[in-house]
Amino acid sequence: MEYKRLGKSGLQVSRLSFGSWLTFGKQVGDTTAESLMKIAYENGINFFDNAEAYAGGKSEEVMGEVLKKMGWRRDSYIVSSKVFFGADGGKGDLKPTQKGLNRKHVVEACDQALQRLQVDYLDLYFCHRPDKETPIEETVWSMHNLIQQGKVLYWGTSEWSAQEIMEAHMVAKQYNLIGPTMEQPQYNMLVRDKVEVEFKQIYKTVGLGTTTWSPLASGILTGKYNDGFPKDTRLGIEGLEWLKDRLLAEENLKKVKKLTEFAKELGTTMPLLALAWCLKNEDVSTVILGASKNEQLSENLKAFEVVPLLTDEVMEKIEAMLDNAPVHPPF
Amino acid sequence: MEYKRLGKSGLQVSRLSFGSWLTFGKQVGDTTAESLMKIAYENGINFFDNAEAYAGGKSEEVMGEVLKKMGWRRDSYIVSSKVFFGADGGKGDLKPTQKGLNRKHVVEACDQALQRLQVDYLDLYFCHRPDKETPIEETVWSMHNLIQQGKVLYWGTSEWSAQEIMEAHMVAKQYNLIGPTMEQPQYNMLVRDKVEVEFKQIYKTVGLGTTTWSPLASGILTGKYNDGFPKDTRLGIEGLEWLKDRLLAEENLKKVKKLTEFAKELGTTMPLLALAWCLKNEDVSTVILGASKNEQLSENLKAFEVVPLLTDEVMEKIEAMLDNAPVHPPF
Amino acid sequence: MEYKRLGKSGLQVSRLSFGSWLTFGKQVGDTTAESLMKIAYENGINFFDNAEAYAGGKSEEVMGEVLKKMGWRRDSYIVSSKVFFGADGGKGDLKPTQKGLNRKHVVEACDQALQRLQVDYLDLYFCHRPDKETPIEETVWSMHNLIQQGKVLYWGTSEWSAQEIMEAHMVAKQYNLIGPTMEQPQYNMLVRDKVEVEFKQIYKTVGLGTTTWSPLASGILTGKYNDGFPKDTRLGIEGLEWLKDRLLAEENLKKVKKLTEFAKELGTTMPLLALAWCLKNEDVSTVILGASKNEQLSENLKAFEVVPLLTDEVMEKIEAMLDNAPVHPPF
Amino acid sequence: MEYKRLGKSGLQVSRLSFGSWLTFGKQVGDTTAESLMKIAYENGINFFDNAEAYAGGKSEEVMGEVLKKMGWRRDSYIVSSKVFFGADGGKGDLKPTQKGLNRKHVVEACDQALQRLQVDYLDLYFCHRPDKETPIEETVWSMHNLIQQGKVLYWGTSEWSAQEIMEAHMVAKQYNLIGPTMEQPQYNMLVRDKVEVEFKQIYKTVGLGTTTWSPLASGILTGKYNDGFPKDTRLGIEGLEWLKDRLLAEENLKKVKKLTEFAKELGTTMPLLALAWCLKNEDVSTVILGASKNEQLSENLKAFEVVPLLTDEVMEKIEAMLDNAPVHPPF
Repeated sequence: MEYKRLGKSGLQVSRLSFGSWLTFGKQVGDTTAESLMKIAYENGINFFDNAEAYAGGKSEEVMGEVLKKMGWRRDSYIVSSKVFFGADGGKGDLKPTQKGLNRKHVVEACDQALQRLQVDYLDLYFCHRPDKETPIEETVWSMHNLIQQGKVLYWGTSEWSAQEIMEAHMVAKQYNLIGPTMEQPQYNMLVRDKVEVEFKQIYKTVGLGTTTWSPLASGILTGKYNDGFPKDTRLGIEGLEWLKDRLLAEENLKKVKKLTEFAKELGTTMPLLALAWCLKNEDVSTVILGASKNEQLSENLKAFEVVPLLTDEVMEKIEAMLDNAPVHPPF
Repeated sequence: MEYKRLGKSGLQVSRLSFGSWLTFGKQVGDTTAESLMKIAYENGINFFDNAEAYAGGKSEEVMGEVLKKMGWRRDSYIVSSKVFFGADGGKGDLKPTQKGLNRKHVVEACDQALQRLQVDYLDLYFCHRPDKETPIEETVWSMHNLIQQGKVLYWGTSEWSAQEIMEAHMVAKQYNLIGPTMEQPQYNMLVRDKVEVEFKQIYKTVGLGTTTWSPLASGILTGKYNDGFPKDTRLGIEGLEWLKDRLLAEENLKKVKKLTEFAKELGTTMPLLALAWCLKNEDVSTVILGASKNEQLSENLKAFEVVPLLTDEVMEKIEAMLDNAPVHPPF
Repeated sequence: MEYKRLGKSGLQVSRLSFGSWLTFGKQVGDTTAESLMKIAYENGINFFDNAEAYAGGKSEEVMGEVLKKMGWRRDSYIVSSKVFFGADGGKGDLKPTQKGLNRKHVVEACDQALQRLQVDYLDLYFCHRPDKETPIEETVWSMHNLIQQGKVLYWGTSEWSAQEIMEAHMVAKQYNLIGPTMEQPQYNMLVRDKVEVEFKQIYKTVGLGTTTWSPLASGILTGKYNDGFPKDTRLGIEGLEWLKDRLLAEENLKKVKKLTEFAKELGTTMPLLALAWCLKNEDVSTVILGASKNEQLSENLKAFEVVPLLTDEVMEKIEAMLDNAPVHPPF
Repeated sequence: MEYKRLGKSGLQVSRLSFGSWLTFGKQVGDTTAESLMKIAYENGINFFDNAEAYAGGKSEEVMGEVLKKMGWRRDSYIVSSKVFFGADGGKGDLKPTQKGLNRKHVVEACDQALQRLQVDYLDLYFCHRPDKETPIEETVWSMHNLIQQGKVLYWGTSEWSAQEIMEAHMVAKQYNLIGPTMEQPQYNMLVRDKVEVEFKQIYKTVGLGTTTWSPLASGILTGKYNDGFPKDTRLGIEGLEWLKDRLLAEENLKKVKKLTEFAKELGTTMPLLALAWCLKNEDVSTVILGASKNEQLSENLKAFEVVPLLTDEVMEKIEAMLDNAPVHPPF
């Protein structure tokens, strides 16, 4: 396993990490959850990603049980939670005080996550989407206080804009607080703009780290949708229509077919090519893998072996096939 | 129920809320306390207001018992306490260190309120009147520290002047502390100056929220004093002479009689008109209702239905009857 | 002459000072202006008050000429200007950039005042009324920068509210800038609220100084309106209707008649009693006198002799006659 | 003429303003320059925009001569310059120290602009494009110091990203400096993203003002390219190929043809419709007009008359024809 500092912070995170979104507490049972985490841990993965929203808290409970049962030293891994966004599991039955990035919910969601995960502190705690109904100042203060109290070690954001991340840092500078360390954006061959363009300066200025999600574009980059839309896949899950429609465009499927061929020529597979392509980007601190089966996870860990194949020439060919290089501002 | 941000904060508070001043631990027994809070909660009220002074702490004990018995999720409601002012219940038997807004009393009163209310933290904690014998700097630091410690989420003031609130914010800016989020002033058809004029700029500059008390002017705006001063009413309570004299002026009673007629014409009642009139003011975050009887509370919750009746034309007629529009400064 | 620190600042200002509002460049010719300033200076008055608005800049030109001609040492007197309010002389012909408390007008008005007054720096520079169309932050920064550049020594406000003054201090603390030193409010026997109540805390907290205007309530407290409204008086000047209507109420004239009698009994005159009454207030740093005639100014300088007559007993009698003691907040 | 605050600042800028880019010192002679500025000023335009790059400094010299000759009061208008970008007029013959946003060039370019414009200070001074070779910290300090010295009143940016603007504000908060007040982006019916999406939050958070350029998309929105590419037009100017290619797409010309028809139906012209459409956006502080002929400028000033025609219904029709509404982020 390779490790990398999370942005400019000194925290060493494994470049592949493991997330339980859409799987724990939903697609996979507790036994599989355990074996998946064991495979991950034993292969050097040290970051387990979670959120209050994943399976309505169930995902954290399952992960907490595994962590307890395994008895791994607390200082050998990194565990996260996220507050806000999707905490209602799409049911819309949350009380007005049970959501958002205001101090009450940020604090209470943290306490609840600690309980579900059965840990004393979160290594990473994310603001899961921006909240236009709370001043960023209030959120930064709340996160800082949780760090002061020892309940959180690093805080970050997920799917915030560059402007919002910089506003958080502006507030942090203004009040001498600890600003966000990392952002969790979607990043894969089909969704590139934020990581490659929008955040470009922030890696340098405040040293932003990134924990990227969906490296396989919800499975599209495995090639499994190449010949139609199979049942029982993640994109079939209710509530994910927004992802499905954006990603499953005809145009994208064509590209994936070409890339699948190209992967074969390179002597690897489509999923490994897609993962290696993410790892190749040095602005990505860690690529979060999801998995519902042991073999799938073990297989995907081989992505490191593919990275050396990605020479400049190969990357250019991929770029030509993708034909979606984001436009950089002229100045 | 409607909800609104508490000033610029992200905390969503129900526009009608429930206070136990003068009732819990005094006028009403524990069974009524329970049924009142149940009615409130089930109708969407999420803010329960209290103070160390109310019934000498008894009010908090009663509320704490109900909260415990009901077992509502802690993240579904907002509970407050207030430090200083009236903590002696008018008996004047407090030791010198048992009052004021110095660090010792602010901290100790908070701990005591937490115990009486049987909660781990107060959502809102108010400085109940200014304390000329403590530098505001000391009070702001004390409140900030309680927030840092997780014992309080938001702090505010009650019956402070605009100058004092701004001084608290000045100190907060100077030392990088969290300033006051909300003020609890009296506000009703007969007492308007602070909310409508004195605080006008502060809503904009620092985003002050308001949790207003006495929307019915201690009962005068129900019309029950229209024909003389009945026994067993709140204004008859010992220690409230200061309120009684100010409010029960002949002039005020005349206005209320006119308004009572007008309410009938509108197809509503005097109390509902008075409550709706408060709700109409967008600078009011929440209107705190008191109640000693279930029916009274259920009835008052209908105030939202009356708000749409308050057209510009109707408001002008009310203004003419009140004839007490506060003077705005010429510049 | 007595001198007093301007608030908590170390600047010693004469307790009676001289203002050219409504006189220089209007009511009085240049010769009179010169003799008036000479009388003032020779009697120990060290503060000459002015504003860009007074006589549309003419007042500053006249004062500048006198200062130049007299050749008094620059370090022996204090001279002020004020920016915004009334700069159009009621004509409403100012361009959008020629008014307000934005940086452009604050800076340009300062430069223009320096030219008209023929001095290198203003000792005091006032924001002449609040400007709701400019953030106070911008104004504080602008004033601070003028102090940095040596063009202004102390800056202050005129007819701002307590809230606005504290907001200026909040901004100053936030950015480590120099806040306002003094406020110029109206203060006399008939207009008391701001000086006696609204600013009460500010004298202590940030050490506000006050340079009060209109000690004789535009002449009403001389007694000259006791028997009707004479021609050629200040209140007859076009554009001052706002002052006239407020002050010339029947009620006020009755009080002045009583006080005139009482002054006689004390062995003094109505104007001297009114001035001495202002001087008696220790929160007043300096009382600005206006005058259009030499004798008038010389006479008014005798006010200091009347102050010792204002014993507690006498002050109580005056209070009874005035019957307008401002209400202090209950807490 | 209508006026508007430049963002949250108190500076009142005319909603239509006048820029000399591509005209003064190039397309138009000194006599025309004079008559154009006279028409602008007499119609209430109070902002004249310039840059060190425009015609290699010649544009500022011409403007400076006109300002001097006209003798308009300095406090009645706003004049700007910009540092960096294009200062070599495309010749690439600048010495290493003659470009960029480092302190040396920012300071020296300011002094040079003051000389060319023959004024003592610039009202607005822009960073003309970001400079990746200078820390934003150095630029913010340099701009702040120029304000401290009185050489600049407000500073801003041109064609910076949201991230860069926020970084400037972060630095300003960190060191207690004055941050950028305004940004000068391109904005017209064909180029919308920055103004409508990227800066959306910044208008609220730090109160960004905008002085937008190219409201007619370099002439395309006049309709004059509808039937082919004529000679002697701005887009034919050497060095502007980057603009030409982006804007003159076939797709754009089709839209303009449709809009030209629609303008006629509305009873106005294509250029006036395009200008009014910009004015309609309340996040635009001022729309900078260019002009090389008197009649053209006089005609364009009529845009205000067209704004009222832009009802919600009309705006929807225009949106349908433009078919380029920028995508807002999903969160």
